[in-house]
Amino acid sequence: MSYAAFSERLATVNDLLNALSILTWDSRTMMPPGGVESRSKQIATLTAAARDTLLADETRKATDAALREVSSLPEDDAKRRCVEQAAHAIAFHSRIPGALQKRRAELKTVANAAWIKARAQSDFSIFQPYLEQVVEVARAYADAIGYEKHPYDALMSIYEPGETAESLTTLFAALRAGIGPVLKAVTAAEQPRADFLERTYPVDRQHAFALKMAALIGYDLNRGRLDNTVHPFEISFTRNDVRITTRFYENYLPPSLFGALHEAGHGIYEQGVDPAYTRTPLATDLVGYYAVGGVSFGAHESQSRLYENHVGRSRAFWRLHFADLQKTFPEALHDVDHETFYRAVNRARPGYIRVEADELTYDFHIMLRTEIEKSLVDGSLAVKDLPEAWNAIIKSELGLVVPNDAKGVLQDIHWSTCQIGTFCNYTIGNVMAAQLMETARKTTPAIQAGLETGDYAPLQSWLAEHVHQHGRRFTRDELLVKSTGRALEPGPYIAYLRGKMADVYGVAV
Amino acid sequence: MSYAAFSERLATVNDLLNALSILTWDSRTMMPPGGVESRSKQIATLTAAARDTLLADETRKATDAALREVSSLPEDDAKRRCVEQAAHAIAFHSRIPGALQKRRAELKTVANAAWIKARAQSDFSIFQPYLEQVVEVARAYADAIGYEKHPYDALMSIYEPGETAESLTTLFAALRAGIGPVLKAVTAAEQPRADFLERTYPVDRQHAFALKMAALIGYDLNRGRLDNTVHPFEISFTRNDVRITTRFYENYLPPSLFGALHEAGHGIYEQGVDPAYTRTPLATDLVGYYAVGGVSFGAHESQSRLYENHVGRSRAFWRLHFADLQKTFPEALHDVDHETFYRAVNRARPGYIRVEADELTYDFHIMLRTEIEKSLVDGSLAVKDLPEAWNAIIKSELGLVVPNDAKGVLQDIHWSTCQIGTFCNYTIGNVMAAQLMETARKTTPAIQAGLETGDYAPLQSWLAEHVHQHGRRFTRDELLVKSTGRALEPGPYIAYLRGKMADVYGVAV
Repeated sequence: MSYAAFSERLATVNDLLNALSILTWDSRTMMPPGGVESRSKQIATLTAAARDTLLADETRKATDAALREVSSLPEDDAKRRCVEQAAHAIAFHSRIPGALQKRRAELKTVANAAWIKARAQSDFSIFQPYLEQVVEVARAYADAIGYEKHPYDALMSIYEPGETAESLTTLFAALRAGIGPVLKAVTAAEQPRADFLERTYPVDRQHAFALKMAALIGYDLNRGRLDNTVHPFEISFTRNDVRITTRFYENYLPPSLFGALHEAGHGIYEQGVDPAYTRTPLATDLVGYYAVGGVSFGAHESQSRLYENHVGRSRAFWRLHFADLQKTFPEALHDVDHETFYRAVNRARPGYIRVEADELTYDFHIMLRTEIEKSLVDGSLAVKDLPEAWNAIIKSELGLVVPNDAKGVLQDIHWSTCQIGTFCNYTIGNVMAAQLMETARKTTPAIQAGLETGDYAPLQSWLAEHVHQHGRRFTRDELLVKSTGRALEPGPYIAYLRGKMADVYGVAV
Repeated sequence: MSYAAFSERLATVNDLLNALSILTWDSRTMMPPGGVESRSKQIATLTAAARDTLLADETRKATDAALREVSSLPEDDAKRRCVEQAAHAIAFHSRIPGALQKRRAELKTVANAAWIKARAQSDFSIFQPYLEQVVEVARAYADAIGYEKHPYDALMSIYEPGETAESLTTLFAALRAGIGPVLKAVTAAEQPRADFLERTYPVDRQHAFALKMAALIGYDLNRGRLDNTVHPFEISFTRNDVRITTRFYENYLPPSLFGALHEAGHGIYEQGVDPAYTRTPLATDLVGYYAVGGVSFGAHESQSRLYENHVGRSRAFWRLHFADLQKTFPEALHDVDHETFYRAVNRARPGYIRVEADELTYDFHIMLRTEIEKSLVDGSLAVKDLPEAWNAIIKSELGLVVPNDAKGVLQDIHWSTCQIGTFCNYTIGNVMAAQLMETARKTTPAIQAGLETGDYAPLQSWLAEHVHQHGRRFTRDELLVKSTGRALEPGPYIAYLRGKMADVYGVAV
C-alpha cells in the first residue's frame, strides 16, 4: 500500500519532468523568437512543481514508508533501488535552497537565448554577463551539495556519480599517454582525400538519408522524430517519445550524418529502457531533475559514441551503405568509392570545433573544457578572461589559432543551459563504448557478423540486455562490471583508436 | 501584500496551463504515434497540478485576502475582476470531483487518438466507446456544476457564460427566419464558376501564401507560427507565443487559405491582449482550465470569422491580392480574374463538412450539432444511434445524403477532446463579428478605407481597443454594449449575409 502511494508520487514527478523536457525541446526547435521570456517562466514553474512534489511531506512520508517495505528485498532489486534513489534525491535537494533552483531554471532559458545571439554574432560580450551568473550559480550549487576536495566533485556528482577531479586526472593521464603518440604518428602521415565532403549536399536529401540511417541502426521512428537545430541533441518524454536533432550544412556532409547517428545512439538507449520502469525513478534523474532513462551522462554518451564511431565510422558500414549514399548524392559522390569515403570520415586532424572533431582529437577538446570548468568553479579563472584562456590552450594543445569566439569559447550549448561538470562524460562515453564493444565482439560472434552484413539487431540486443533495459537501476560501474567483468578502464579505447588509425592511415602507431 | 501573493499563485496556474497547451499543441503537430499513452498521463498530471494549485488552501486564503483588498475598487477594475474571476473559478471547481477532472484529462488524449483513427478509416465504431465515455463525463460535469433548466446550460457556462439552451432557441429561430429565404433564393440562382479551385496547388506554395496573408492582416510571426494539422486550430502560450495551424489539400485551395485567415483572426486576438494581463486571470480561463486571453469561445470566434469572412472573403481583399495569388499559382489561375475568384470563394451551397461550409449554410451545421449535443446530454439520443440521427438531419435540413461517417459524424475534433457545449460559439461568433463590423465601419471611416487599400491596421486598432486588449476583463456582452451600444443581436449578421449574397449572386434576396 505504501509502495503504491510512493509510486504515484514519483510518477507525478516523472510526468512534470517530461513536460519540462517537452517545453525545452519546443523552445529549441519550434518556438517563435518572441516566446523566450514567457517560456522561461513556464520552465521555472514546472521545475518548481517537480521539486515541490518530490520534496512534499506526502512524498517524504511515502518514501520513508516504502523504504521500510523494500528493506528486506535484495540489495539490487528494482523496487528497492527505486525507493533508495528517491530517498537519496530528496536528501540531496533538501540541501539546495529553493530560490537557487528557481534562479537556475530561469537563467537557463535567457542564457541560452543570449548564447544563440552571441554565437551568431561571434561576440562573447553578449554571453559574458549570463555566463558569470551561470558560474555563480554553479558555485552556489557546489557549496550546497557539499564536497571533500574540490567543488567540481560536487557538480560532477549530478551528472557522473562517483567521478571526481582526481579520478579524471588519472584517466586523462592514461589517455594522453596512450593517444598522444598516435596523434603524433597520424599528423606526420599523408592525409586521405576528403575534398568531396565539401561539395553541395541538398539539405532535404541529407535529412532523409540521416533519418534512414538512424532507423537502420535501430532508432524506432514510431517513437521518435528528427529535427534541425544549431546544436544536435536527444531528449525523451518516456521511452515512447524519444526525439533527436542534428544540424545540416549544405556544403559539408558529415555533421548531419554523424550527428544523427550519434543522437540516434542516445535515442536507442532511451527507447530500450524496460517499459516497466516508465514513470518510475529508474527512468527519472531525480537529482538532475531530468526525465531520463540512461544511468549517467557518461553511460549515455557511450551509446551515442558507439553508434556514431564503432558502427557509423566503420569500414563495414560504408562498404554496405555507400552505394545508397552515392545514389542520394550522385553529383557530389560520382568519383568516390566506399573505401575513400571511409578513410575521409575517419581523418584525424586538429580542429576548433568539438562536435566536428575526429575520434583522435576529441578527447583533447574535453580535457580543455574540463580544466577550464574546474578553474572557473574554483575561481582561479574569471569569466572575462575565458576567451583568452581558451584560445591559449587550443594553441598549446592542438597548435591552432582560434579565429573567433563562435569557433572558440561560444561553440557549445552546455554552459548556456547551466550545465557545468558534464563535459568529462563525453570522454567517459568514449572509454566505456570501447570497453563494451570489446566484450560484445568477444562473447557474441553474431554481433560482428551482423555489422558485416548490415544486421544491427544482434548488437542492439546485446546492448539492450547489458545496458539499455536496466535504465537507472545499476550504476555505470555496476553495469560495466556485470557486462565486461571490470569497472571503467581506458585500455580497450586506446587499443581501438590505435587499430583504427593504423588501418585508416596505413601507418604503424 | 496579499494581492502580490494572490498574483504569484495565479501566475503559477497560468504557467501550468500554458505548459498544458504546449503539450496539446505538440501532440497534434509533432508527436510520434507511439507517444499517445505517455502524453495522456502527462496532460492529466499537468491538469491536476493546475487544479491543485488553484484549489490549494494557500490560494484560497490569498484570494480571500485579495477579495477584501479589491472590494473598494470600481466594479470593473482590472484587479478586482482578476480576483473575482479567480474566486468564481475556485467555487466552480470545488463542486467538481478531482477524479472526474482527471478522467476527463486522460480521456481527451486517447479519445482524440481513437477519433483520428476512426476518421481515417471512416469507422464510427472505433470512436463510439470513447464518445460514450465523453458523454458520460459531460453529464457528470453538468450534474456537478448544477443547472436550473437543462444540463446543457451547465456545460455552456464553461465556454459561453450567460448563454442557455433557451436563449439559443430564440437566436436560432431568428437566424432560421432571416437566413432561410436567402438560402432558398441562392439555391435557385445560377452558381458562379468555381472549377479552378480544384486544380493543382502545390502544398509548399499554399503554406507560404497562407502565412503571408496571415501576416498581412496583422498576425505577428515573431510571436507565432503556422503548421499543418488534420483540424486547424489556434493555441497560445501567453500573448508572446500564439500558434496557428491549417490544412492543405493539393487539389482544393480554399481550406488552407481561409483556415489560415480564420486561425490568424484567433491569433490576432490573443496577440493583442494587454501585456499587463500576461500570467493573470485576465489571460486565463480558470473555469475551463485553459490559458487563453479571449473572453468567451463565441467572442474568440467573432475575431476568426471576422478576419476569415468580412476581410478575407471580401471583394476588396481579392481585388488587392489576387494578382499575388495568381503569380503564386500561375498554372491553376491563368484563366481567372479577381472578380471570378471572389465569387467562387463566396459560393453558397449545402455540403457535409462544417469547416468547408460557406457562410450561408454554416449556421445550419451548428444548429445540427447543438441539437444533437443537447439530446446526447439529456439522454434522449444514444451514442450508438448518433450516425443515423446525424445523417437524418443532414438529409432533412440540407437535402444531402451523407456518404460515410468521415464526412458525417466523425468530421469534427471537438467531441474527441471532451468539448461538448461549444459548437454554438461558432454561430455566436458570426453574429458578433457582423455586429462589431457594422459599428466599426460606421464610426471609423479609416477602417473601410484601409480594407479598400490593403491597410489592415485601422481595423486591428479598433478591434484591439474594443475587444483584444481587454482580455477576459469584461464579459462578451459587456464588450458588445461598450463598443456597439447593445448586447448580442442577429440583425447586422442577417443584413450582412443578405447583402453579400445579393452581391455575389446578383439576385434580390
